[in-house]
Amino acid sequence: MDNQFEFFMPTKICFEAGISKKVDKYISGKNVLIISDPFLYQSGVAKQIGEGMSGKNVAYFSDVEPNPSCESVDKAAEVARAINADCVIGLGGGSALDISKIVSCLVTNEGSIYDYYSGGSRTLSKRQATLVCIPTTAGTGSEVTNVGVYTNKKAGIKMPMVNNEFWPDYSIIDCELTYTLPAPVTASTGMDAFCHAIEAYWNKASQPICDMLAIGAMKLILDNIKTAYSEPTNKEARAAMIKASLIAGIAFSQTRTTGIHALSFPLTTEFGANHGTACSITLPAFIKISGQQAEAKMKALTDYLGFESLEKFSEAIEELMKGMNMPVRLHQIGVKETDLEHITEVGLGAAIIQLTPAEMNKETVYKLLKSIL
Amino acid sequence: MDNQFEFFMPTKICFEAGISKKVDKYISGKNVLIISDPFLYQSGVAKQIGEGMSGKNVAYFSDVEPNPSCESVDKAAEVARAINADCVIGLGGGSALDISKIVSCLVTNEGSIYDYYSGGSRTLSKRQATLVCIPTTAGTGSEVTNVGVYTNKKAGIKMPMVNNEFWPDYSIIDCELTYTLPAPVTASTGMDAFCHAIEAYWNKASQPICDMLAIGAMKLILDNIKTAYSEPTNKEARAAMIKASLIAGIAFSQTRTTGIHALSFPLTTEFGANHGTACSITLPAFIKISGQQAEAKMKALTDYLGFESLEKFSEAIEELMKGMNMPVRLHQIGVKETDLEHITEVGLGAAIIQLTPAEMNKETVYKLLKSIL
Repeated sequence: MDNQFEFFMPTKICFEAGISKKVDKYISGKNVLIISDPFLYQSGVAKQIGEGMSGKNVAYFSDVEPNPSCESVDKAAEVARAINADCVIGLGGGSALDISKIVSCLVTNEGSIYDYYSGGSRTLSKRQATLVCIPTTAGTGSEVTNVGVYTNKKAGIKMPMVNNEFWPDYSIIDCELTYTLPAPVTASTGMDAFCHAIEAYWNKASQPICDMLAIGAMKLILDNIKTAYSEPTNKEARAAMIKASLIAGIAFSQTRTTGIHALSFPLTTEFGANHGTACSITLPAFIKISGQQAEAKMKALTDYLGFESLEKFSEAIEELMKGMNMPVRLHQIGVKETDLEHITEVGLGAAIIQLTPAEMNKETVYKLLKSIL
Repeated sequence: MDNQFEFFMPTKICFEAGISKKVDKYISGKNVLIISDPFLYQSGVAKQIGEGMSGKNVAYFSDVEPNPSCESVDKAAEVARAINADCVIGLGGGSALDISKIVSCLVTNEGSIYDYYSGGSRTLSKRQATLVCIPTTAGTGSEVTNVGVYTNKKAGIKMPMVNNEFWPDYSIIDCELTYTLPAPVTASTGMDAFCHAIEAYWNKASQPICDMLAIGAMKLILDNIKTAYSEPTNKEARAAMIKASLIAGIAFSQTRTTGIHALSFPLTTEFGANHGTACSITLPAFIKISGQQAEAKMKALTDYLGFESLEKFSEAIEELMKGMNMPVRLHQIGVKETDLEHITEVGLGAAIIQLTPAEMNKETVYKLLKSIL
């Protein structure tokens, strides 16, 4: 796709340690809704941001759960409408950011998310509220994509929703917000960011701008994730990780992801693995087969990152994950051999799986999963 | 600046061989003004694009000269107002694109460019017309910046104007438009793109997203410029060059340029050198001193590009330029020793010169110019 591509990422990125306390200056609205998970609300982080805003009416919605459900979206939208929000701030990991995207639209689009998503027939009209995303993990990349992922609990599926109204107006990137991340979250979200970068790079819809960003992001992550994991307040490592996550986000915002993310959906909804773990658990296996249809590109990548071969690269990633106490075999997250056929089927149901640079069918996907059971 | 930066580039980029014939689908307006230089009009390129638009009123302004003057801007604005343009297309090198930026604003902002620029006191209000930029050289990068450079003939100065209304809505990148570029233009515009990339990279306002893009763009140029120069219809080389120019443009759109561009202004306005030549003629000398304040970064760059040292890098660039029959000494473009003091003064008058990673004052700039007299 190198000779035919598009690039569009209209979000303004503001990156600075401590910037989240100054978010006030980016907001022209009066009625602000800050959406976060319960922890960020109870620990005072959300309030600190809200209290930094002078002369504004600030409300909070803090019932965001991991892998947010459509029901949570509708509850948050009710609050946003009740305060007539002209600014919605998503604060958190991917879940809070994703909810903020759809809620900023639903303020002026009546009805439920189900009317617009997963079989709904309505189309979101132009967003009126300012949308600000403030990531608190270094992994999601959601702050620079036009994608929100929501779980339809009725149907038991997790599905991405792509909409040009979802590009945040501002992404406020403050590495200080990640200092308190627990080590396992640093590991899993950091590896999620790595997946975003490598999936953008080897993607059948890859393109040169994103390739350059993806390569840079991967190097930053490999150079810094261990330090961020073991020294949570290491400013340089934390800044590097959230920078890498942001840059990987820009990369996959244009290309979408591939098999790793496709297979992560059932591993999360049905086996409860967190998103980063559900992605990275198949990463080493996907690296091994990525040479099938992207041989030259993967050779250039391993050369740049300093690995002798895809096999060695795959092994190094697995060792890195083990060193951060991440599961590297499916049985560690409760998957049994009898589950593999079903996971294969659900994974193949996600269109993005066909962007993987390798033949993806019932046999090959089953074989890949079996190899890491 | 790596730990404090912003990024904002809201233009939609569409890259495809032959795409300029299909520009119709990006335009919702009715009254289209296509701005180009006389050659692109007479050779039929502008008309080919205009005739590809069904059901639109298309007018042409083809009086664009190199280093466009404020007078040309005002003439084009008159035409745009007369047809009530709701879409302005800039087609050409930097000159046509730069004129299209300000003209797209002047349609609904009364008065002359002098009212808004170079001492003028008015502020441009929000642009109403769609702005589309279609580069026909691989060098300017103007298609992805919010900068226009205009020559104030009365004052005899060439000055950049920066405005957020200048971000094009669409950049349509069609390598086929560059097949007919004469070899000297391929050389000078390609080296201009290289300057954009390296000036973004070593800039005191550099930042990681642009660094990754700049490195990638430099490598693309070094790998392809000679082929594009000697085989004008080599599709791969032409696509690589216009891609590199685009990517270098994104990089310097965020950081601005440095001493190379600052010194190019007098070399163009007073000695008639074309922009790419006026920039690249000082490039080897600037490379030599770039280690002063950007040692580690320049070491990483030379390692990546495969040069032993800055000295060798500088020599290689000079050889490359010589191989494309470009001047590499100031006397070749008519500069005498007695001119150096004046050039130094004018160069130091451009604020961007202080973004160079080396001490820039009367002594150092004079010395640099003297070394390449």
